[in-house]
Amino acid sequence: MSAEKCLLCPKPKTNYGAPEKLITNGFISPTFPTPLLDLLPAKNGEEPTMQFLLEVVDILTNYVKKTFDRSTKVLDFHHPHQLLEGIEGFNLELSDQPESLEQILVDCRDTLKYGVRTGHPRFFNQLSSGLDIIGLAGEWLTSTANTNMFTYEIAPVFVLMEQLTLKKMREMIGWPNGEGDGLFSPGGAISNMYSVMIARYKYFPEVKTKGMSAAPRLVLFTSEHSHYSIKKAGAALGFGTDNVILLSTDERGRVIPADLEAKILDAKQKGYVPLFVNATAGSTVYGAFDPINEIADICEKYNLWLHVDGAWGGGLLMSRKHRHKLNGIERANSVTWNPHKMMGVPLQCSAILVREKGILAGCNSMCAGYLFQPDKQYDVTYDTGDKAIQCGRHVDIFKFWLMWKAKVSRVDRRVHTCWLKKTEKHLQANKNLHGFPQHTNVCFWYIPPSLRGMPDGDERREKLHRVAPKIKAMMMESGTTMVGYQPQGNKVNFFRMVVSNPSVTQSDIDFLIDEIERLAHDL
Amino acid sequence: MSAEKCLLCPKPKTNYGAPEKLITNGFISPTFPTPLLDLLPAKNGEEPTMQFLLEVVDILTNYVKKTFDRSTKVLDFHHPHQLLEGIEGFNLELSDQPESLEQILVDCRDTLKYGVRTGHPRFFNQLSSGLDIIGLAGEWLTSTANTNMFTYEIAPVFVLMEQLTLKKMREMIGWPNGEGDGLFSPGGAISNMYSVMIARYKYFPEVKTKGMSAAPRLVLFTSEHSHYSIKKAGAALGFGTDNVILLSTDERGRVIPADLEAKILDAKQKGYVPLFVNATAGSTVYGAFDPINEIADICEKYNLWLHVDGAWGGGLLMSRKHRHKLNGIERANSVTWNPHKMMGVPLQCSAILVREKGILAGCNSMCAGYLFQPDKQYDVTYDTGDKAIQCGRHVDIFKFWLMWKAKVSRVDRRVHTCWLKKTEKHLQANKNLHGFPQHTNVCFWYIPPSLRGMPDGDERREKLHRVAPKIKAMMMESGTTMVGYQPQGNKVNFFRMVVSNPSVTQSDIDFLIDEIERLAHDL
Repeated sequence: MSAEKCLLCPKPKTNYGAPEKLITNGFISPTFPTPLLDLLPAKNGEEPTMQFLLEVVDILTNYVKKTFDRSTKVLDFHHPHQLLEGIEGFNLELSDQPESLEQILVDCRDTLKYGVRTGHPRFFNQLSSGLDIIGLAGEWLTSTANTNMFTYEIAPVFVLMEQLTLKKMREMIGWPNGEGDGLFSPGGAISNMYSVMIARYKYFPEVKTKGMSAAPRLVLFTSEHSHYSIKKAGAALGFGTDNVILLSTDERGRVIPADLEAKILDAKQKGYVPLFVNATAGSTVYGAFDPINEIADICEKYNLWLHVDGAWGGGLLMSRKHRHKLNGIERANSVTWNPHKMMGVPLQCSAILVREKGILAGCNSMCAGYLFQPDKQYDVTYDTGDKAIQCGRHVDIFKFWLMWKAKVSRVDRRVHTCWLKKTEKHLQANKNLHGFPQHTNVCFWYIPPSLRGMPDGDERREKLHRVAPKIKAMMMESGTTMVGYQPQGNKVNFFRMVVSNPSVTQSDIDFLIDEIERLAHDL
Repeated sequence: MSAEKCLLCPKPKTNYGAPEKLITNGFISPTFPTPLLDLLPAKNGEEPTMQFLLEVVDILTNYVKKTFDRSTKVLDFHHPHQLLEGIEGFNLELSDQPESLEQILVDCRDTLKYGVRTGHPRFFNQLSSGLDIIGLAGEWLTSTANTNMFTYEIAPVFVLMEQLTLKKMREMIGWPNGEGDGLFSPGGAISNMYSVMIARYKYFPEVKTKGMSAAPRLVLFTSEHSHYSIKKAGAALGFGTDNVILLSTDERGRVIPADLEAKILDAKQKGYVPLFVNATAGSTVYGAFDPINEIADICEKYNLWLHVDGAWGGGLLMSRKHRHKLNGIERANSVTWNPHKMMGVPLQCSAILVREKGILAGCNSMCAGYLFQPDKQYDVTYDTGDKAIQCGRHVDIFKFWLMWKAKVSRVDRRVHTCWLKKTEKHLQANKNLHGFPQHTNVCFWYIPPSLRGMPDGDERREKLHRVAPKIKAMMMESGTTMVGYQPQGNKVNFFRMVVSNPSVTQSDIDFLIDEIERLAHDL
């Protein structure tokens, strides 16, 4: 039975498609014949492999060009059922029949065609955007190296790069000599989860072995505007979301320190034990920076763990002009910082940084001798796997290291200092836009013709709440630009435009505003 | 101050290096001049960008060729301090001076040079190995698309691919009509963590809001040979490692069902509440398969959640010949299955699959309206973000989907049916090798000349314990092949050779054995 044939046995010649058909769109030479033979590790597989990979690269580099081309759309929207039915032969279903290599290339093209160009200068939808060429090269190399961060043994260079980069990041935070610990994790939510775990381990180490019953009722504090991952961590780690106390914010979305202190006292009075405070440096919607120094004072007073969630705003530590927004971060016990956001590193790239050395290992290590052998010939303190809650860990460091090497002094430029003023001016000049810009997040309502002059009240609020979703739906269909919207607290749906892509120019922002006006003229 | 210059302002011309120097090793044409100008998004950046990316691809494709070339080394070992000091100008340190593009290319070459070729046919060190060309192409495309799995809005194609692929995987598990739920997660440890979280939510949903104090003392069961991530999950999620009960195994590393039942009864007698049983399908060291059906009987009898950790062995579900080893898996409540192991998908690619629909969302959703708007124009049930403990989630599906499209019927071949017999024969024929082969893991001791004939006892055990580390150290220095070792239970250090790379032939296995004998002749 051929399907059961073993690899070690002589291999039957495999044919990926009709031999007379040639792939003719090679960028090396359109006339270079590519027989559709087996790829490596097949015998004589080198040439077809190189040809195939170069065909793929041709597709990818064309996509890269188009990403930066403002005359292309950001997306070609289709509903799920349309894509599932198959559009122009693009069949997402998995069948039991292997496809030809030629069809695989068509699949690659179609996948990109029906996707969203997150690197397009008119994509304002997410905190992560842009397509950094050096970062992209780094990610291509990472996937070619295809290794794993858990030991020095199989990732010597990447493990050292991670160590050196984390040290630099800790220096930027301001911890003495960059001392401390850290890891790259699969994203900000996991990094934040680490911070809660470590805080618990610091104050109640016996929870590791005995479980939460070994601790009193522990309480976590975070802004009502903070990322939901703190609540998720509370649920996952066994605290319960009821024990994640949300802090009130001022009109710009910043935690009110007095509210923190009042809620700490309230919790203590109820017999609960305050453990952990998260200060957000760059909130998801408003881009708000909590006053870290004032929060740190309170944490010191009550002996609480201070975590700074700088997933979004951490990049400002690289900016001499803007880093003051994170003043006090050096007093934090732990910091989340996602280079895949403000710093434009390709996804995923998130770091959890910890001031106290050794606590990450103390919290997470299980000393699994079958995975991490202590009797190796090299210094096994470089084996980081046991510090993580993961075992295998993707190499997220290389692209970041490479970008740092290439342009650290240019990272500053990612922080758009004048577009904010210009957009504020735009908002002021346009009486139909009402906004509250902050950081590189600009939040605003578009007031459509039918609501202009309508007195404020429930009816107007309900109508205004439906405006952004309607505009967004039309925007997706037209595919010319993308911006997010959401409600927040008592505010009805509003747009959040965010810039983290250095390709964005003032004219792109103008385009977005014009496009909103164009789409909404009948609302 | 130029470093503070905003991107929206007219951009100064940036020079990545000395203009008179050319990159001359382009594979398109060695004489094609590449001025070291700005990359995209710079004006006129298209040409230098394409040139730069093609230079990178040249480096990568050369690496790919060498990976499959048995005349190259698996690694060029250096100690951490040597790499940190800088070898032949390879400087890992991050400075504040940006490097030229030319230097960036040199860094890429050096990074690969001092790394480990995990795709080399003589790399037997890890459960994840090999370099699949289709998978590699998929990963290059993924990083070029650079998007995020949390909403259909920004990853329409990938979200649907994930949905369809998870359904296929559930069909292979044997759940009726492939119904159920699932997610790709950053690795097997996180997938296993999900399973524990969901089990807890199923039986004690109020833990989500109230914390572990809302539940009695809960107990988890897993094999003494299981992956340490179950224990890590126990620690992280607030159960405590004391409440992770390790089950005894037979001589081949398989859980003894009677021991499970005895330990369940023991826990109940103590007033604890058994919650969850993990059955391992393919253990890390021995490759053992726990008897799922017998364990499922016990789980049904005592109403416990049954998870199958098929991170390693799950791939056998694709094999008509070998899937019987996972008989009973259709009775599991959840399954971990890492296509990045036996199926050769590039790292990272791990799935958590759940039989009950809706429970993943029930367990993890926080209904953050600011992230997941219910009033979008498309069917928002496709927005998967709130089911995850992550927020942003890397696109791990595309490479797997593409590989499935290209060669699903060939996946079977990854399961080496005769090498095992051949290696057993090898072990039998060679009186200096003593092993216990199982699955594609082969575990064995090499008995060096000085220990042959020595009677069994503490002295021999201690000496034998030091043999594998010594051989491994010499093997790393020589760089010709790589295999792991570890102790397990009362067994002193032994080698674990593992095959998951379809490039491996019988001669590579012979090479490994010969190399061990060559290196160890003086021991």
